[in-house]
Amino acid sequence: MTTDSSSTAPPGDVASQQVRIFDTTLRDGEQAPGFSMNRQAKLRMAQMLESLGVDVMETGFPAASPDDFAAVAEISRQLRNTTACALARCQAADIEAAGRALEGAHRSRIHVFLSTSPLHREFKLGKSKSEVIDLACSGIERALQYCDEVEFSAEDALRTEPDYLIEVFNAAIAAGASTLNAPDTVGFTTPAEVEALFRQLYREVRHQGRAIFSAHCHDDLGMAVANSLAAVAGGARQIECTINGIGERAGNASLEEVVMALKVRSPLYGLQTRIDTRKLYPASRLLSQLTGQSVPRNKAIVGENAFAHESGIHQHGMLKHRGTYEIMTPQDVGIAETRLVLGKHSGRAALRQRLQVLGQQPDEAAMEDIFSRFKALADRKSEVHDDDLIALALGQDPDAVGPWHLGRLSTHSDLGGRARATIGLHHDDGRQISGEAQGDGPVDAALKAIADAIGLSPQLTEFQIRAVGAGSDAQGQAHLSVSHQGRHWRASGVSTDVIEAAAQALLSAINRIQRSTPDQVDAAARRAAP
Amino acid sequence: MTTDSSSTAPPGDVASQQVRIFDTTLRDGEQAPGFSMNRQAKLRMAQMLESLGVDVMETGFPAASPDDFAAVAEISRQLRNTTACALARCQAADIEAAGRALEGAHRSRIHVFLSTSPLHREFKLGKSKSEVIDLACSGIERALQYCDEVEFSAEDALRTEPDYLIEVFNAAIAAGASTLNAPDTVGFTTPAEVEALFRQLYREVRHQGRAIFSAHCHDDLGMAVANSLAAVAGGARQIECTINGIGERAGNASLEEVVMALKVRSPLYGLQTRIDTRKLYPASRLLSQLTGQSVPRNKAIVGENAFAHESGIHQHGMLKHRGTYEIMTPQDVGIAETRLVLGKHSGRAALRQRLQVLGQQPDEAAMEDIFSRFKALADRKSEVHDDDLIALALGQDPDAVGPWHLGRLSTHSDLGGRARATIGLHHDDGRQISGEAQGDGPVDAALKAIADAIGLSPQLTEFQIRAVGAGSDAQGQAHLSVSHQGRHWRASGVSTDVIEAAAQALLSAINRIQRSTPDQVDAAARRAAP
Repeated sequence: MTTDSSSTAPPGDVASQQVRIFDTTLRDGEQAPGFSMNRQAKLRMAQMLESLGVDVMETGFPAASPDDFAAVAEISRQLRNTTACALARCQAADIEAAGRALEGAHRSRIHVFLSTSPLHREFKLGKSKSEVIDLACSGIERALQYCDEVEFSAEDALRTEPDYLIEVFNAAIAAGASTLNAPDTVGFTTPAEVEALFRQLYREVRHQGRAIFSAHCHDDLGMAVANSLAAVAGGARQIECTINGIGERAGNASLEEVVMALKVRSPLYGLQTRIDTRKLYPASRLLSQLTGQSVPRNKAIVGENAFAHESGIHQHGMLKHRGTYEIMTPQDVGIAETRLVLGKHSGRAALRQRLQVLGQQPDEAAMEDIFSRFKALADRKSEVHDDDLIALALGQDPDAVGPWHLGRLSTHSDLGGRARATIGLHHDDGRQISGEAQGDGPVDAALKAIADAIGLSPQLTEFQIRAVGAGSDAQGQAHLSVSHQGRHWRASGVSTDVIEAAAQALLSAINRIQRSTPDQVDAAARRAAP
Repeated sequence: MTTDSSSTAPPGDVASQQVRIFDTTLRDGEQAPGFSMNRQAKLRMAQMLESLGVDVMETGFPAASPDDFAAVAEISRQLRNTTACALARCQAADIEAAGRALEGAHRSRIHVFLSTSPLHREFKLGKSKSEVIDLACSGIERALQYCDEVEFSAEDALRTEPDYLIEVFNAAIAAGASTLNAPDTVGFTTPAEVEALFRQLYREVRHQGRAIFSAHCHDDLGMAVANSLAAVAGGARQIECTINGIGERAGNASLEEVVMALKVRSPLYGLQTRIDTRKLYPASRLLSQLTGQSVPRNKAIVGENAFAHESGIHQHGMLKHRGTYEIMTPQDVGIAETRLVLGKHSGRAALRQRLQVLGQQPDEAAMEDIFSRFKALADRKSEVHDDDLIALALGQDPDAVGPWHLGRLSTHSDLGGRARATIGLHHDDGRQISGEAQGDGPVDAALKAIADAIGLSPQLTEFQIRAVGAGSDAQGQAHLSVSHQGRHWRASGVSTDVIEAAAQALLSAINRIQRSTPDQVDAAARRAAP
């Protein structure tokens, strides 16, 4: 075997047995199309990530927008055991914004980045090698004034001349950076190449145990996880990754795969992480619910089939010895083997216990509300599943509230004909309006009726409805994106009835538009009111 | 760099520059929960895989069931440029079934497998090392009587003692096997380990250029693609893989990722495949439609985001030089950059051309039918998208026809109340029945009404509805699984109305049950008829 445990532990490194997990679900993950989250959703996810045990959490890019700034600030104030990190270009305004957003953090890190590859230097930056080094160093020095520690990323490092990369990293350490990240920005590299580069960096950069090397791999050729582990074998001690492997384009290395590979193959790597692996599945499900993006059945570790054995040959082997076809157990990653089914006879204790397993820890007031909605749901459904419970717990999102509320929704459809919907809405200020419309099926008709009644027709750019669960009485989820006057809005709705779920989702999107520009939408609604 | 092109090309191998792509979408992929396909769907997929250019296609496991046997036989007769392969244990009955199923093939391969690892030998087989070798050799010799070439797989090879594995492979070659597969059955291995093992096999097995080594990697730790490429770097010249990476548990290596990695990094590997990469995206979409399992947005190569650049920084770089953030183009894998939208003004030529891009080549009669349904759809929808077109083309599935047909479907729902549905069905023999039911939302009510009317209530074990497309008038797809008297059935339905799609899916499942046991279902229906 080329890689054995003796060669993976760089001598003399204080952190040599520990790999830091740097989660960037809320930054690199969240910036990918379809995965954006509002502040409330980011806060939920951040709580889950801290309880999962990530060492560093990249919470956003404060200079990108006021929303990003506010989310970073709010999350940073809440973290206790996790270092709060914010991204910044090597520019004074970016670094200052990151620094201010991190002010309330228990422990703070600014992550400054600058391209170092020939292609990026020439076409993106228009700067010489020495100009890039000067810019990186002044960025690092400035960042150090605002936070506890600084990470420097050499963007497109894997396509940078190795000798120059070493020069850049030596300068970065001298300027005060304590983490040196060499990202595979375009997802172009193979494990053998990654390992060789990190070995060279570990050997030739003058880090003297004061700085840690970090890998940030993209999955464009399907090798992000293997590349991250190859970096560790070459001496890296931080892996940047995301839940479910979300991120730009094909995404980042998947946190759950990287962590479980280090755990399952611990005799090989001889390394450990702080991650509580039993929270991997709940974290994956929560992210899926918050973004409306489902996890494929054949996803490693957290997919529905990851621990399924259907073929007779495999089942036969499993019955004789689990090890024949299983290298880890479902319980290792937080999947209960015996699926606990809750129903209308279940009490608060069982509900609270299950919510905890799913990573949801509502306070007393929230618990009362969830319990009453759980009972109402259980009255109508024979079994309430995990996905239902997370949806109920997430129903707490204050974003889902007003000013418009759905009072009536009635639909009628005949095969081959146009469906009809009539709706009634009421406003927090007491107004009531109604409307009706025809459409292709009741969902289409219901959405048109709502849009017509309020007099606001944002353009639907993405629309997905799903029924999730094991029966036709499963909970329906609707996720949609709309654009209105150049801005984009996402919303979702949940109900046992998919039509109601879709109607609630559109109303929620219109409410968000309304809350951002109240006068204008109110004027439209008054014109439309009967 | 550890891996360079000079070290990846084993000297003296006749096929040294060519990597064979062995597709097992229809065997390892199809046997995973949620991915089963009926014979018609398998045939469609097989046509797509042959046009994609796979060298060997594993078409099924004929001994597993009469259905599997029939699918293998039918697909084998149709393949011209692709070797038809069938799986068999080292047992006479399995091998004979595989041989008979392959009788009509242009070129045939039987793939025999037997476990070689200590754990499998002891707990699964209860056999000694020499017994395993004897069994393997007699299996290979028997298989050679029925086909053109034999592949032997040493199941769980990556956990087998290397010296014993070499002994097994030497015996297998002597018995007549021309492909030697070393599968990572449990997805446990790292690229460095895989490369080292294949280097040793290549060096120490007495293959003398007469046999080719093959890799079959599972993705349990997220490394199937990297492991497959590491095997090639170590001397393997066949990769076993699947479209979208489907397969047992976390799936197999993804064909599209393996192929594109070899292409994008061809200066590194110095190898090529026969795959027409422009058909990768159509193949991925077709499989997704046939199985009802969607591809996540962040999937490499074929995911919706694989070529998306949303962040301002990346867009800025892309505008200055594509290479800053893109290592291949969407066109390389068959994604049209400018999305061609078809509508009611489009003619037959445009429709046929688009269907061809999507890998659908209907004959004249089918084309007329698709065109008339396309026109009807285009009259109701402003834009007809690729997904709609594939669904229309797949509507040709004769499985979707009778004996029961949906004549009427009327639903009514009110917010917070029970929804009601009334339905009318007619049978090929002239009978007409009707029914009505209440439920949680119109979908639930419609399904109950159909089941009640026919008097057959198969248990719904899986249910998914989706609206796919860019507007609320997108096409709805319903996919469901039911169990009835110990057997499982899958079905799907497509309509602009999700309720109708769900109703059609259930009716299709009941029709399948009916066609398999006509008397019994008929009797049930007569009892239920008014």
